[in-house]
Amino acid sequence: MTKGSWQEKAAKKRQEVRSEIPPSWLLPQDETSKFSETTPVSVLDLPRKYLDEKELHITEDYSPKQLLQKLADGGFTAVEVVEAFSHRSAIATQVTNCCTEIMFSYGLERAKFLDGYLVKHGKPFGPLHGLPISLKDSTNVPGYDSTIGYTGFIGNASSIKDYQFVDLILSLGAVPFVKTNIPHTLMTLDSENNIFGRTLNPNKLTLTAGGSSGGEGSLIKQRGSLVGFGTDIGGSIRIPAYCNGVYGLRSTVNRIPNVGGTDPSRDYFVGVDFTTGPLAVDLEGIELVTKAIIESEACSKISMARAVPWRPVEVSRPLRIGSLVPESRLPIHPPLKRILKEAEQKLRAQGHEIVPIEKYPSAYDSWKTIMGLFLADPESTAISTILDAGEPLINSLTDTGVKAFRGAPESIAELIELKAEAYRAAEDWHGVFDDNNLDCIIGPGAPGAAPPHDSCIIAPFTAQWNLVDFPALVIPYGKVEDTDEVEPVDKGDLADCFAFYEDKNAYLGAPGHIQIVTKHLHDEKLLSCAKIIEQALVS
Amino acid sequence: MTKGSWQEKAAKKRQEVRSEIPPSWLLPQDETSKFSETTPVSVLDLPRKYLDEKELHITEDYSPKQLLQKLADGGFTAVEVVEAFSHRSAIATQVTNCCTEIMFSYGLERAKFLDGYLVKHGKPFGPLHGLPISLKDSTNVPGYDSTIGYTGFIGNASSIKDYQFVDLILSLGAVPFVKTNIPHTLMTLDSENNIFGRTLNPNKLTLTAGGSSGGEGSLIKQRGSLVGFGTDIGGSIRIPAYCNGVYGLRSTVNRIPNVGGTDPSRDYFVGVDFTTGPLAVDLEGIELVTKAIIESEACSKISMARAVPWRPVEVSRPLRIGSLVPESRLPIHPPLKRILKEAEQKLRAQGHEIVPIEKYPSAYDSWKTIMGLFLADPESTAISTILDAGEPLINSLTDTGVKAFRGAPESIAELIELKAEAYRAAEDWHGVFDDNNLDCIIGPGAPGAAPPHDSCIIAPFTAQWNLVDFPALVIPYGKVEDTDEVEPVDKGDLADCFAFYEDKNAYLGAPGHIQIVTKHLHDEKLLSCAKIIEQALVS
Repeated sequence: MTKGSWQEKAAKKRQEVRSEIPPSWLLPQDETSKFSETTPVSVLDLPRKYLDEKELHITEDYSPKQLLQKLADGGFTAVEVVEAFSHRSAIATQVTNCCTEIMFSYGLERAKFLDGYLVKHGKPFGPLHGLPISLKDSTNVPGYDSTIGYTGFIGNASSIKDYQFVDLILSLGAVPFVKTNIPHTLMTLDSENNIFGRTLNPNKLTLTAGGSSGGEGSLIKQRGSLVGFGTDIGGSIRIPAYCNGVYGLRSTVNRIPNVGGTDPSRDYFVGVDFTTGPLAVDLEGIELVTKAIIESEACSKISMARAVPWRPVEVSRPLRIGSLVPESRLPIHPPLKRILKEAEQKLRAQGHEIVPIEKYPSAYDSWKTIMGLFLADPESTAISTILDAGEPLINSLTDTGVKAFRGAPESIAELIELKAEAYRAAEDWHGVFDDNNLDCIIGPGAPGAAPPHDSCIIAPFTAQWNLVDFPALVIPYGKVEDTDEVEPVDKGDLADCFAFYEDKNAYLGAPGHIQIVTKHLHDEKLLSCAKIIEQALVS
Repeated sequence: MTKGSWQEKAAKKRQEVRSEIPPSWLLPQDETSKFSETTPVSVLDLPRKYLDEKELHITEDYSPKQLLQKLADGGFTAVEVVEAFSHRSAIATQVTNCCTEIMFSYGLERAKFLDGYLVKHGKPFGPLHGLPISLKDSTNVPGYDSTIGYTGFIGNASSIKDYQFVDLILSLGAVPFVKTNIPHTLMTLDSENNIFGRTLNPNKLTLTAGGSSGGEGSLIKQRGSLVGFGTDIGGSIRIPAYCNGVYGLRSTVNRIPNVGGTDPSRDYFVGVDFTTGPLAVDLEGIELVTKAIIESEACSKISMARAVPWRPVEVSRPLRIGSLVPESRLPIHPPLKRILKEAEQKLRAQGHEIVPIEKYPSAYDSWKTIMGLFLADPESTAISTILDAGEPLINSLTDTGVKAFRGAPESIAELIELKAEAYRAAEDWHGVFDDNNLDCIIGPGAPGAAPPHDSCIIAPFTAQWNLVDFPALVIPYGKVEDTDEVEPVDKGDLADCFAFYEDKNAYLGAPGHIQIVTKHLHDEKLLSCAKIIEQALVS
């Protein structure tokens, strides 16, 4: 390791971060050596071996809503809650590499303040009083780097100025206590970079945790945090949600303001907007943080917020639910086909109407369009920053990885054509909803369950909703079973960049999911429909 | 005139349109010959000479709100109302050339239906039951061309398919009855084209009626219509409003959906979004149509609508009103300086707080940015369509006219920089509002009152709000007086494209105005502030 090399900088950074974990929380070497990206085992039970009874009680026996109630009542102090989740997240990251900046001391300080507030004022500080919140590494927090995996960004804590997002959740009483891992560039589906390495899927370490908010997905599945925030420009919240088996919401752009973060690309991006949104252990957790943010006075002050107030909606039952008939160019894996079919059967059994939708804007074509928009940065800033620092590209960014069907737009005329394609797709999707009088659409958020590391490069099923800015939610449902047999499929031109279900053992036990979608800005309706759908699925 | 030439096509089109006016409503030649673009007189009193007592009563003695009340009560039938406004608009267009498509028979049919509905159901058809509405020529209406002045578009009635906007207002009970004149390309401030000629300002025919919704401004000032709709991408609603002395609202993009129109440029435009909005004889008229549209079920079905419901706001008095200290590069004419000063004095006298704002994003710089965005069409479709038809460019589109400070962006990198400038300006404007705790901002919507024809090419005071998508309203206030003396000014680099106050007689008697602005999406607050401000101004 040459002095001053990127390798040295990365090693030093890792060491600094690790030193923030109390020594008594470090796992013995003979424990950690059991786990790697090539061991096909689950680590979901591991915390039970190391946490004490109270810590387990706090981190396992409460939903986010119940925990908030307990905190507001004074049944738990904010300090004991954040300490329990800090300990659990410390265990989690030692086997799945899900965390980046360890901010336990920051969280503890904030928790002490909140406990004092509750005693003094006899009421909670805000609607999220005492709730530990994990944050994707790109979120700026005072005193902590936002390296997003770039060695060139180490030490940027001192130059960051925009803390609007963390200030927003602090104003609601939340307790940020850890940041989570992401892929280099934030644009691949495997959360790996040259500083923090690769995040593993706690359900089965040989599977990807997804990206770009992969650390969030992995940490939340391990209940190292009950609610966290990621960002999504093509599926970066929903992909980790389905890979790990948690809930993830891509809200309409700027309902939750996109501020206070560090971005790998240029200041202003003309291609497509990203959104900030929650991942959580349950649907109630998704809704309560979304509602708290949108309803807050602080949010209405943020210029990028849409200033669209939270609107309660009454959804009349039974629902009319559109079900997308798969397109042949994007084959769905047998387990997910079965899971979606079972979901529809349960929905029908509860009286809901399933409307098969045959004609709709192709996800395959949408991917080609949005890929062009992703690449609408003439300087390829996100990549060149890596190369300028002398770093190699991670696997999922190598030649195979960036295979894109379509190159970057080279002229304004080409860019206009891409934007026009996005506009027409949005018009057509509105037509699908209106002509069929749909409450929502359900379908896959991916071809199947979490694939092995570095085996899926494209994300048409999530990105098609970014292209048209419709809110979309992934909820976990079912899992891959031994009875799901491999079927022959036509790989078309997707062989190198799309995961296929060829080795059923690779996927066995991975969580299933469904994706639910409503029209642009109808985020409240999405959550209302999701609640009704989930009731039917558990019935 | 060669057979098949553009001149012949235009003449034939004019003849066809004119034949839709009942012969008894045609003015004698010795009347029309008195008026031209070089006669510095008002024609506001002319209708009194030709309308009967009942027609005058209907068109002059009611505000839009009062007229709706009378229609709902059955005090007037929709038929007699639309006939009165048809007659008055026929007079108006014969001396100011404000109308394009004469749709009196269409309006009459609709009015008959509404009268039948009221009798049968005992209640109005919708919130705009029986209200005659004029529409900018670009608005598509079944059976009528949307030539927008292009000879190449004559006869396009048969190929137009999108009628969403007119369908929306029909569903509310409105009665579309006439379309109004615009400039070629919709991108200049003088409403002139090779089919319909030039629209004149009824206050003084030697002054411009403004553009691009100039026909609307002129017609409404003559009470040929009490409420109409235009579009605004750089000031195209507010400029005719200030030029003619009526009210004009540029709402936030897509609060009122931008659909059902014919555009001179390409299908999808990447530069900057236009908005649809009302012009009216009073503020109440602006609010009632805006509210009726946003609250309608039909609007929520339109994909491009923002789906942001109408939100009543309570504005606490006294208001904190930001007053923009003029930038030296954009000199304000003496009459408007005086008018703005008087307005501020009246507002202070009513207890409102006027906060001078010295530091804000420059309107001059904003114009340079938005000009680049306007030109972000590599094929210059709006211009090439004129030239392809063999037509000459109108005066305001000639070399002097398109002088722009800045050329078209030539690469995606340049386009990104323009978009980034717009984004930064929006952030900075939000800072101005928040740091000063402002309810709204008041200032000029132009350097002065309506200038002579073809003498003002740029529109920084209106376009700066399009650049950042803030809602903005122009209301008439005061007028140019004989006591407003010429003052020496530094013309800087604006000599060829910005009207200066050099000949005070040219402007004498022209209406004054103020522009009121609130933050992005705060359209309801804008209207609430405007009501309070107007109360102070008339006190």
